[in-house]
Amino acid sequence: MTGKVSIVGAGPGAADLLTVRAASVLRAGNVILHDDLVPREILELASPQAQVVGVGKRCGSHSITQAQINSLMVLYAKEGKSVVRLKAGDPGVFGRLGEELEALREADVPFEIVPGITASVAAAATAGLTLTDRRAASTLVLMTAHTCQGKTLSRTLLDPQQTTYAIYMPGPDYGRTVEELLQLGLTGTTPCALVSNACRKEQQVRFLSLFELQFTSRVPAPAVLIVGEVARPGIFEQSTLLLEKINESIGSTAQIPAYQ
Amino acid sequence: MTGKVSIVGAGPGAADLLTVRAASVLRAGNVILHDDLVPREILELASPQAQVVGVGKRCGSHSITQAQINSLMVLYAKEGKSVVRLKAGDPGVFGRLGEELEALREADVPFEIVPGITASVAAAATAGLTLTDRRAASTLVLMTAHTCQGKTLSRTLLDPQQTTYAIYMPGPDYGRTVEELLQLGLTGTTPCALVSNACRKEQQVRFLSLFELQFTSRVPAPAVLIVGEVARPGIFEQSTLLLEKINESIGSTAQIPAYQ
Repeated sequence: MTGKVSIVGAGPGAADLLTVRAASVLRAGNVILHDDLVPREILELASPQAQVVGVGKRCGSHSITQAQINSLMVLYAKEGKSVVRLKAGDPGVFGRLGEELEALREADVPFEIVPGITASVAAAATAGLTLTDRRAASTLVLMTAHTCQGKTLSRTLLDPQQTTYAIYMPGPDYGRTVEELLQLGLTGTTPCALVSNACRKEQQVRFLSLFELQFTSRVPAPAVLIVGEVARPGIFEQSTLLLEKINESIGSTAQIPAYQ
Repeated sequence: MTGKVSIVGAGPGAADLLTVRAASVLRAGNVILHDDLVPREILELASPQAQVVGVGKRCGSHSITQAQINSLMVLYAKEGKSVVRLKAGDPGVFGRLGEELEALREADVPFEIVPGITASVAAAATAGLTLTDRRAASTLVLMTAHTCQGKTLSRTLLDPQQTTYAIYMPGPDYGRTVEELLQLGLTGTTPCALVSNACRKEQQVRFLSLFELQFTSRVPAPAVLIVGEVARPGIFEQSTLLLEKINESIGSTAQIPAYQ
């Protein structure tokens, strides 16, 4: 019987900044596949019987490839193990989560995502700062200056085709929200995920296009709207043909997933 | 003897998505001042002896003002109590944290910030999505369509003067990062906080301007650079004169903190 993969955010590194759920999933795992940045004090929460495997990779000195990490997750899960893929910070923020989800979906392995405290939020708490302020900062932009392709913050930065928008409290007037996003340069076919009551019993997720969003009924608060290519469910599992279409639409810099 | 205020992120609402530290601080608090969105199952973690006070406010039907919340925090702390200010999600993301920090600093009340899982990260985990993807989404923008001033996503959206940038992995070449930020329209005097190893024993925080960042020595990874007015330490505690200067630089829509 196939096991399960839990993709778990380890947060910034202090063991008590794991979520209660992350700590409990980590304790129960048979195999822990962890990044370099996850410190020993967190790994020590794993069961003494668990197999703890470092799968860290650093630019320039890849000891293990993303394809190998993907294969390990699938392999162990197919052996019936509870696999914990433990990633620094939050898995969905600069964490190669997209590629790992794709591999799990392709192999038909059940998975869950346990969110974590992302580095910017931890840094602000440490520095005694707020990240937004209605008087001086209405938007928060998360970027990275560093990629493994040797790219840096590029001129195409904030190119709407290369950006995910997370809109907090997108209602009550979805039409107006759509209008403002179109003014930013997004197209009506941009995929969206409208999520209400995330991680609560009454949670709801609707996948729809920006165009369709105008006509959908309201979901209960608290809600978040995720807008961008990442919100196309299962997009990267599709055929290369489809990926080529995406590449056409987002420009030649996009890469066909290479399983390098 | 003055007590302490812990500003705690309650995360998306599931009790097991509190961090271990948040749960422990909550259990130890004498007074819990909580937002509307924090569900009962989380409040039940507080000690039976604790005084649990709902200080939720909703647009249009303010039962309590921000100034009153600020006063309550200070008042209870001055009585020597351990005050927990429990906020949905992460306190620093669309949470009025700036105003609360200002009140605490003015009153000389010690505080700590315990970060939480912010709503966008929770929503992505629920929907099985990544928020960034090196193939299709190199930037993540967090915005809100809804403010209590009746403003919505404005035309000035992504105005660099109204935006916080959080740069993950800002090194190794700070000069190049600065150059790219200047190209986005930021000025050399923009304040920055360079945070290394946030929430770990070896953490370091440097406050400096974008101009100075070019010449500073590298800090160890993992690091995050927070860029924008929010990174000016103690900015809002300063005189109205200074605030007027900020308003000049960020345009007439900015508001002098009013303690409404």
